[in-house]
Amino acid sequence: MSSVTTPPEAPSGSLEVASTRTRLLDAAAHLFYDQGVHIGVEALCRRAGVSKRSMYQLFESKDDLLAASLERSVPGYLALLLPTDDPQLSPRQLVLHVFERLEVVIADPSFRGCPYVSASMELKSPEHPARVVARRFHDSLTAFFSAALSETETPDRELVAKQLTLVHDGATARAVVQGALGPGLAVATASALLDHAGIG
Amino acid sequence: MSSVTTPPEAPSGSLEVASTRTRLLDAAAHLFYDQGVHIGVEALCRRAGVSKRSMYQLFESKDDLLAASLERSVPGYLALLLPTDDPQLSPRQLVLHVFERLEVVIADPSFRGCPYVSASMELKSPEHPARVVARRFHDSLTAFFSAALSETETPDRELVAKQLTLVHDGATARAVVQGALGPGLAVATASALLDHAGIG
Repeated sequence: MSSVTTPPEAPSGSLEVASTRTRLLDAAAHLFYDQGVHIGVEALCRRAGVSKRSMYQLFESKDDLLAASLERSVPGYLALLLPTDDPQLSPRQLVLHVFERLEVVIADPSFRGCPYVSASMELKSPEHPARVVARRFHDSLTAFFSAALSETETPDRELVAKQLTLVHDGATARAVVQGALGPGLAVATASALLDHAGIG
Repeated sequence: MSSVTTPPEAPSGSLEVASTRTRLLDAAAHLFYDQGVHIGVEALCRRAGVSKRSMYQLFESKDDLLAASLERSVPGYLALLLPTDDPQLSPRQLVLHVFERLEVVIADPSFRGCPYVSASMELKSPEHPARVVARRFHDSLTAFFSAALSETETPDRELVAKQLTLVHDGATARAVVQGALGPGLAVATASALLDHAGIG
């Protein structure tokens, strides 16, 4: 399983329902990310070792399972990228930490794109519950950048925060299209935008 | 059919084979873009009004049809974005024209993402023939930016060209995730990178 979609916690296994749910979420995280959102219910249940009947007792539909699986992965993905709460890091260091980590995540051979951007592109309906999760992830990342810049004198930190999120999206998309990002490109692009905004 | 996937020329219709091929490419361009690359051969043939036998006489597989359909759309998509050959435009104006046009393309209600980035994310195999087409499109865009900057004194125009392509990818991805790009964001981000590179 990819580091991007690895759940943040091991399954509890203390209750059968929890275990079934966890196995379904694990299977969904793996198969949706590696093979795409059009993977069938049968393949999901086979990998989870769960009957379709059990799946439909826990999730209304495959779409709900996909959304729940993406939602569960958000804290882990953010933890891969965001710095720990270190008061010694400057606003610039806080931001660049994300792009340094992003370059490491992208360089992993199992990387298939940002799971939230990718699911948003694959699912054509903007109202799909997984796309709602993707927007929340996106907003969390922008909110982190905005908070990181809150003690700078940047006149328009909301704009800079959106630009930095755009660099995250662009770097992950580029890595998929080209098969590689190119060393240092995400950090160099974020650095240029920080320089331009006067965040030294 | 979306403006993004509209073929650059009307079908000739002079020969039956050409017409069948054109109808298949039109159907593929529309269905793959609007519904995703997992659309079935039956739906493609039904929309094209062509038998499966006729399709397989012209294309080895659905994958080949998808690649041919993407390949056919590249000149039209580039024409939507790139400026005409106007010697009065400065390097900065040439580059910013792309992002001004990109914002118009993205604002079209039929926009579902850059067709090449999107297909690359949906098709999980890097060797898929459509992903080879997507990489060529990507390289063409980067080559345009590099050529546009050739008369500047930018010390590393290959880096700036890659950064500008990353902004294209990020803007199209962001527009899909958020349902909108945000007015002026692509132009503002490209402008900041040009300022940073000293391209006034």
